[in-house]
Amino acid sequence: MENDNINDEAKNLTVSDDISKKVKELENRIAALEKKDDHLTMVLFSGDFDKAMAAFIIANGGIAMDMKVTIFATFWGLDVLKKSSFDTAGRGFLEKMVLAMRPKGSGKLGTSKMNFGGIGPKLFKFMMKRKNIEQLESLINMAQEYGVRIIACQMTVDLMGLKLSDLIDGIESGGVGAFLASSSHSNTTLFI
Amino acid sequence: MENDNINDEAKNLTVSDDISKKVKELENRIAALEKKDDHLTMVLFSGDFDKAMAAFIIANGGIAMDMKVTIFATFWGLDVLKKSSFDTAGRGFLEKMVLAMRPKGSGKLGTSKMNFGGIGPKLFKFMMKRKNIEQLESLINMAQEYGVRIIACQMTVDLMGLKLSDLIDGIESGGVGAFLASSSHSNTTLFI
Amino acid sequence: MENDNINDEAKNLTVSDDISKKVKELENRIAALEKKDDHLTMVLFSGDFDKAMAAFIIANGGIAMDMKVTIFATFWGLDVLKKSSFDTAGRGFLEKMVLAMRPKGSGKLGTSKMNFGGIGPKLFKFMMKRKNIEQLESLINMAQEYGVRIIACQMTVDLMGLKLSDLIDGIESGGVGAFLASSSHSNTTLFI
Repeated sequence: MENDNINDEAKNLTVSDDISKKVKELENRIAALEKKDDHLTMVLFSGDFDKAMAAFIIANGGIAMDMKVTIFATFWGLDVLKKSSFDTAGRGFLEKMVLAMRPKGSGKLGTSKMNFGGIGPKLFKFMMKRKNIEQLESLINMAQEYGVRIIACQMTVDLMGLKLSDLIDGIESGGVGAFLASSSHSNTTLFI
Repeated sequence: MENDNINDEAKNLTVSDDISKKVKELENRIAALEKKDDHLTMVLFSGDFDKAMAAFIIANGGIAMDMKVTIFATFWGLDVLKKSSFDTAGRGFLEKMVLAMRPKGSGKLGTSKMNFGGIGPKLFKFMMKRKNIEQLESLINMAQEYGVRIIACQMTVDLMGLKLSDLIDGIESGGVGAFLASSSHSNTTLFI
Repeated sequence: MENDNINDEAKNLTVSDDISKKVKELENRIAALEKKDDHLTMVLFSGDFDKAMAAFIIANGGIAMDMKVTIFATFWGLDVLKKSSFDTAGRGFLEKMVLAMRPKGSGKLGTSKMNFGGIGPKLFKFMMKRKNIEQLESLINMAQEYGVRIIACQMTVDLMGLKLSDLIDGIESGGVGAFLASSSHSNTTLFI
């Protein structure tokens, strides 16, 4: 009987031990799922001043809430990240033409509504200053300083005849896979 | 031996008890994660008639599926929520000018395509009526009646020279933090 | 005492057994939650060439990463899926007019920026060819071949005077409920 008793004990311990391990494993998987609450991934497709404002206000809001923020900039969204000047010597004719027609950087963007040939953004900047709202350039700087990860879509960088060095510093380049790897672990995903 | 036996029993009970508590805790955490399936959070950035239609059709669809729906209206999305008339006396010159140029409420919005100086929305409303599709005003009313939470972005309300009382009743005001608190617990998140 | 001992054993086994079942149930629920990482649901609202490109590049990226991809096409997004020609005989006057004014299929879309009366898309197609980027038609074909589920919004199909047979083959029709059923099990949700 003592023997039986020892066997029982062994059995119980084994069962408990297996379950404990399993429960620990499940807890880790739950923690990984919960972490998505704190991840925010945005596609910045638009190069409109107002949409870029929205994207970077949300990004900085995320940072303020301790979230991990990733911005995947593609197509016209690259306009937002351009340096205010860069040399296009040595690029093809079409690339030069497209680059010449697109705004260079966050200071030159038009608005999606009420642009009025460029007066719209100036008006909004003036109104924003009066209301003590951070300007787009400051929002981008803050985002980068506080660790927002900005990925420039390599395919559209190539397509637009851009080089990574034409964009402000601290931008990674990556493909749609980099976006999806981030978005599939983010609870908040937006296409702006 | 009896003593040992009692110790074993105590040990087994403790292990089981701890595990039971842990399992219960994990179950609660899983239930919280599952609840996100039923949450839908949208940014309504656009003031276009067709995009506002899409947002409120999705919102009412969510309600029909017992989802908890939150709309965070910002920038031009505020146009959708304006009362059809309100007094702008006492506002600054720029605010008055911007307010004068923006449509007042859901009945005055243009479409993003085929607007034709305002004929587009009329055409669509006519076609919608013939197909028995709810009009935008009804969709907004229904959404509010069935508990869709609508938050007006305080920053853009201020920026546009608006007051919360210029918007239809039942709208909260809040910041980007309110949006992120909602979106980070929502499985479906959209920027419209 | 032996009796007690047997009781203890029975009790321990029962506790372990219940917990095992519960743990198994929780594991299944966690696995269901984890599956959302691999699901991607997009609303394709826009009929712009560049936005449609973005949607189908993301869709094919998802496929490459073994994701389950659903596209819910609504409003102007239906333009992207139209056959390049179809007969509008027998439709009402307004429907015919709207259909006549909208582009027929992915080969006829304009860009959201730099359209220049239709030169923009031609320019981009030329630049894309030079950079070996897949054309939109190929991206749509690939997406369909590799199992991207495309749902045409029944309400807007009706509204625009379309029939499902006017769209390319292999498109389902469905309502906003079909979209929400998919999005609420997808980690990445985008409105394009």
